[in-house]
Formats: sequence, structure tokens, C-alpha cells
Amino acid sequence: MTLALCMDGARGEQLNGLLEQIMAVYSVSDDETALANQVEDFLKTQSHLAVRRHGDTVLASTNLGKPQRVILAGHLDTVPVIDNFPPQWLEPGDPRIREDIAAAHPGERVMWGRGATDMKGSDAVLLYLAATLTNPTTDLTFVFYDHEEVSGEKNGLKKVAAAHPSWLRGDFAIIGEPTDCGIEGGCNGTMRFEVVTHGVAAHSARAWMGSNAIHQAADILNRLNAYEPQTVAVDGLEYREGLNATLISGGKGTNVIPDECRVHVNYRFAPDKSLAEAKALMMGAGAGAELGNGEHVATGGVFEGFGIEMKDESPAARPGLDAPLAASLADLVRQRTGREPLAKLGWTDVARFAALGIPAVNLGAGSPLLAHKHDEQLPESDLTLMADILEDWLG
Amino acid sequence: MTLALCMDGARGEQLNGLLEQIMAVYSVSDDETALANQVEDFLKTQSHLAVRRHGDTVLASTNLGKPQRVILAGHLDTVPVIDNFPPQWLEPGDPRIREDIAAAHPGERVMWGRGATDMKGSDAVLLYLAATLTNPTTDLTFVFYDHEEVSGEKNGLKKVAAAHPSWLRGDFAIIGEPTDCGIEGGCNGTMRFEVVTHGVAAHSARAWMGSNAIHQAADILNRLNAYEPQTVAVDGLEYREGLNATLISGGKGTNVIPDECRVHVNYRFAPDKSLAEAKALMMGAGAGAELGNGEHVATGGVFEGFGIEMKDESPAARPGLDAPLAASLADLVRQRTGREPLAKLGWTDVARFAALGIPAVNLGAGSPLLAHKHDEQLPESDLTLMADILEDWLG
Repeated sequence: MTLALCMDGARGEQLNGLLEQIMAVYSVSDDETALANQVEDFLKTQSHLAVRRHGDTVLASTNLGKPQRVILAGHLDTVPVIDNFPPQWLEPGDPRIREDIAAAHPGERVMWGRGATDMKGSDAVLLYLAATLTNPTTDLTFVFYDHEEVSGEKNGLKKVAAAHPSWLRGDFAIIGEPTDCGIEGGCNGTMRFEVVTHGVAAHSARAWMGSNAIHQAADILNRLNAYEPQTVAVDGLEYREGLNATLISGGKGTNVIPDECRVHVNYRFAPDKSLAEAKALMMGAGAGAELGNGEHVATGGVFEGFGIEMKDESPAARPGLDAPLAASLADLVRQRTGREPLAKLGWTDVARFAALGIPAVNLGAGSPLLAHKHDEQLPESDLTLMADILEDWLG
Repeated sequence: MTLALCMDGARGEQLNGLLEQIMAVYSVSDDETALANQVEDFLKTQSHLAVRRHGDTVLASTNLGKPQRVILAGHLDTVPVIDNFPPQWLEPGDPRIREDIAAAHPGERVMWGRGATDMKGSDAVLLYLAATLTNPTTDLTFVFYDHEEVSGEKNGLKKVAAAHPSWLRGDFAIIGEPTDCGIEGGCNGTMRFEVVTHGVAAHSARAWMGSNAIHQAADILNRLNAYEPQTVAVDGLEYREGLNATLISGGKGTNVIPDECRVHVNYRFAPDKSLAEAKALMMGAGAGAELGNGEHVATGGVFEGFGIEMKDESPAARPGLDAPLAASLADLVRQRTGREPLAKLGWTDVARFAALGIPAVNLGAGSPLLAHKHDEQLPESDLTLMADILEDWLG
């Protein structure tokens, strides 16, 4: 299989064709190589682009000597499949089309399946722009990267930034995370850690000889239930926070009093807080729980008194809408869609660009509310809307 | 390897030798065949015994035409090894000897390792008696069986009772579960079931789009913590109950709001309750949660309103000390040890014999408090004490 642009079709058909082709390639995190190969081959057929690859991350750049460079990035991986692969087009009236999508896009075909919104729709548009924007107003660097949906340590963009920082030079970046083609600025930070209880194992027929670590975890869950997540305004945008257990495990056998229980917690925090400030709210300042150094007792915060083991942490990013390129893009989006910039709630690689000193926003096809859902789906007009906006801005 | 009785040694050496040999054979549940083979070969060398086998359960019977028959049973399997295999003798003063054991048995060697108390000590005594009690006062049937430490469905004694009920005919049964050579009568019943919560999956950056099944499980754990287990007197013996979560699991990914959480609960109930009465206390009467028929909502009881899936259930057994053979054994134990009969707290196959109409008690070497512990251990004098009592009673 080679990815190809249908050269004699209308633009809509060309976008749909690219989407169909990349949706058909299974690319759950850790299995991106096949899709990265196809993307690399496709980009290499475009003579105006210089193509580079690191691992399963593929970059393609124009080198026109323009005073500014815009980076356009999309991840190739998806979250795991849940009865939603292979993908398919749903014709208008198909009952699998969500009511909200059908109401907003009557009479329109919808691409259904894993990755439709997060984020192969945007990837298709970026591939299309890479092939067709041969004379843009700024130089362009397209980045198609792996391992966005898993631990930050594996992230392809992070690895390129570490191995080849010059490949990511630029004045502004757009990440195609789904935003319904609006602008979402900045992002919440995220951290994941395990809250741990310890007990004493014993035969469950003589439970009083032991101490039940799962029963002790009641207080962890009670604190999570009592916690009221805040909505925080930063630079005029509203960031909604969240604190959730995402995994729980404990016990060694059906007849054994459990000696350990682990609650995996994900905290999403607004960009008014540094990473250190956010950690202090969860486990107190100076608790000593750093990535990779095992379990430490929380000295304060929500989980005071419990053992904490850090698993992952990524800072938040402020919206960055004061950058001139961001302002001009926001004006254009306002004209085309009537929409004001919004806060991005999920952590995205916008924060990684922010850390590199590159202002960045999210702008992509598809609804952010459908990311990771079983019935992820994308109305076809989102592809042309995203292509329109970026062609106007860069063409 | 063939199991052998050291014929020229003193009785203590013979008992120790048998224990050493069977301890050295790994026999965690599902891996009993090697030990069952050795036990079968050993019993077949005894000309006064008729030996039969079903799966990995081996039976050996005298057929002397006595008016009564006593069954002596021991399971061959152990719970999983936790750095306690292979076994070894600890010499007096060894720091691995528990303080309580050292205090009660000064200057004595101790067998350390998986199965020492539960229940290869008793198995060694039963093998010794099988070989040496050639002229007992009642006919004897020795039963060495597999899969006692796992789900009741796999239990070797249950399978023999179903396939060959005549092999288990008898007037009284002794099971060698560890009792410090006292008599423990009857047993608590036990049931295991999963209490289930259901939520709605969503990306954890937008937690409010989903519903967190792990957070919902707080109320399951709160009810477990609020529950006060009772101690119930039945036929003069005290049965201590227990209600514990032994396993918990939930969640599909570190960034996904969990849509299910399962708490595996073990209820140990006194023999004043039938199985149906015990179930009603947990999930209401007529909840419909039966083994193998999936999840049903609890209509009452401790877990009212939660989904319940039954996993295992075994009725309790009343003490049965009114049987004449039981009474004479209790008198003898009282004379030799000064100890009164006690209630057995863990579920044992006493209940299986009770269901077959055969009065049964537990009497075995080793402390019941050490069963399943990492540092399971047995003072050697327990072997001779158990052998003394049973030789006196049957010889």
C-alpha cells in the first residue's frame, strides 16, 4: 500500500481519500511504524519538501528562505481499538451517526472508527497541505509523530526535540488536536501518580490476623469523591480541572487479606499553576515523590498521609494568544466560524512547544468531546473547513 | 524418588523422614501429580491396604470387617510459594524460628517452608499411620486429595464424592487441617462474590463527560469498613465471622475514566446460618445471583443496590460433637492436651463430610494461625503428639 493523493478529484474527494487511506492503517500506540512508513513515502514524492525521520516520527519542511516558519503537527497513533476498527463511511441517515453530529451536519457523510477525530482527520488535512501548499507565505514544517497517547517518555515529538532540536525550529506551531476547527489555546497540565495503602496479609478465614489494604483505600476514594474540581480563568480563557482515579488494583488471592492496594490517580490542572504548585496540592510540598524514585508519604494536600509513587508529569501551558501569528490566526478563525478562542482542557503537545519557546495553539478537525470514545466520528465537511482556514492563512 | 518409611529408626525419626520427603515435593494446587504418584506408590507397598485413585486423589482402606469405619483425610496441595520453597529444618536457636514457636517448644527442631503446617505435617502422620496401624479398632480409610486450596469446583474430595460415593463410606471423619492437635469442630461457611460498579468511559481530560466507576466503589469499601463481624455460638463453640475485600480491579487505561470496578468479597459465616440465609444478608433474598449466571443487582443486605456476581459458595457445618466417636476422641484429646474442642474458623472439607452425613472434625499438627503465612513452620513434636493421640484412639 502506498498513500496517494487522487490528483484528478475535487479537493473534498482528495481530502476524503487521504483520510480513508490513513484510517485503514491500524496505528494504536506502539504500532505506528506501518503508517509512518506510508506517510514518509508520500511526503518524499513531494519535490518541494525536505523529509527527515527519527524513529516513527516523520518531518517534512519547505526551505523557501521566508522570514518566519510555522510548524504543523499531528500524531499518528490512536488509543486502543474497542470494536471500532476497521473504519467506515456512514451514509446520511445511518443510525450509528450520533444525534449531535447528524443535527449539525445534515445530509453529510461521516467517517466512523478509531482515530476519526483524534486525530487522523487533521492528519489527512496536514498531508494534503504538505502536498499542495507549494508556495506558502511562511516556511512550513510538517511533523507526523508517534506515541502521543501514552506515557510522555515515549512521545515522538519529545524524542525529536531531544535528539534534533534544530528540526523543530519555528516561530509558531499548530497542533491538529480536535477543536471543531476552532482555536484552543494553552492546555491543562497533567500528572499521574499512584496512591498506595499497605496492610498485612493473612488467611481470609482469620482476617483479624492481618490488616486489609483494600479497606484502607476507602479513604482515598472518599477524598476523591469529596474533591470539587475548579474552573480557572487564565488570560481570559477558562480551564476546567479534574481529579480522577483511572485504575485500581489490590490483592494477591481470593482467600488472602490484601497487603497492598494501588489507586492510579490523574490530576489535570490549569495553567495558573506550575508543576510544583500542582504537586503540592496533591501531596504537600517537599514530599519527595519524584519520577522514578519510588514511594514517599504525602506530607500534605489531598492525599496527605498516603504513600505516593509518581508515574508521569507534564506542565500546563498558558494560552500564548499574544503572539502576532496567533492573533492573526484567531482573527481569521473568528471571521470564518464566528468562534472565539477557547481553553484546551486536555494536555497536548502545545505545552512541549511552549517549553521550547514556540507559541502554539490547537486547531483541528473533529469534536474534542469524541476523542477516545467508542463511537469516534468525523463529518466530512470538517476536513474542508480546516483546509480552508489554513490555506487562507498560509496560502 | 520413592517415598519410604525409614524402618530401623525410632518413631520420631520415621515421622520426620516422611515429612522431609513430602515437603521436598512441590505441590502447589494444579501441580499435585508428582506428590500423588509418590503417595500412591508408598501406600501400594502396604499389603494391608486396598489403594484406589481418582485424578490426583489417592485412597487407601483396611477391610477388616469392623463394625465402624473412620476416614482420615489430608490434602496434598499447598497455596503458592512465596520464597518458602524448598523447605528446611531449622535447628534450635535459628532466628527464623518464630518467637511463639521457640517459646512453646524450646530446644526443638522446626520444619520451615510452604506446607509445613497446612498440611504436610498431618499428611506425614497419616502416611505413617496408614503404614503402621495394621490392626486398628475400626476399619480405616485414608484419603490424600488434591485442589483443596482453590475453587471448590476443583476439589479432589468433592470429585471423589461425586464419582465414587461408595469410596467415602464411613461413620466418622478426621481432617488433618492444622489445629495444634486439638479438636476443632464444624466450620464457618464461605462465599466469594464480586461487587460491581458501572460507569461511563471518557477521556480523563474531560472527566465530566463520563462517570467514574472506581469513585463509585468508595461506597462498597465504606460498607465493608462499617460492617462489624459477629462472633456466634453454635452448640457451645464460638464462630468468628469475617467480611473482606480480597481483590479489587478497575480501569482500562491511565487516561480513561473507568467504566467498571470489581471488588472481590469473601464472607465467612457461622454455622447458625444456611447458605441461603448468609447470601440474603449480603445481597437480599431472591437477588438471583447464582453461580455461573452473571451479574444481578443486590435487592437488600450489605451490598444493596450494587451488581453482584457469585464466584464460589460453600455451606458451613455444625460442630457434630454429639456423635459418639467424636465424643470419645474429644475425651482423649482433653486427657492428653488439656484442651477443650474449639470452633474451626476457616472453611474445611469437614463441611463436605457433613453434607454426606458423616460427622467430622479437624485434628492436625501445626498452628492454624500459620496457615498460608510466608513463615509457615512446624515444631517436630507436633508430629509425635498427633500420632500418639490417633494411635491411642485407633490402636
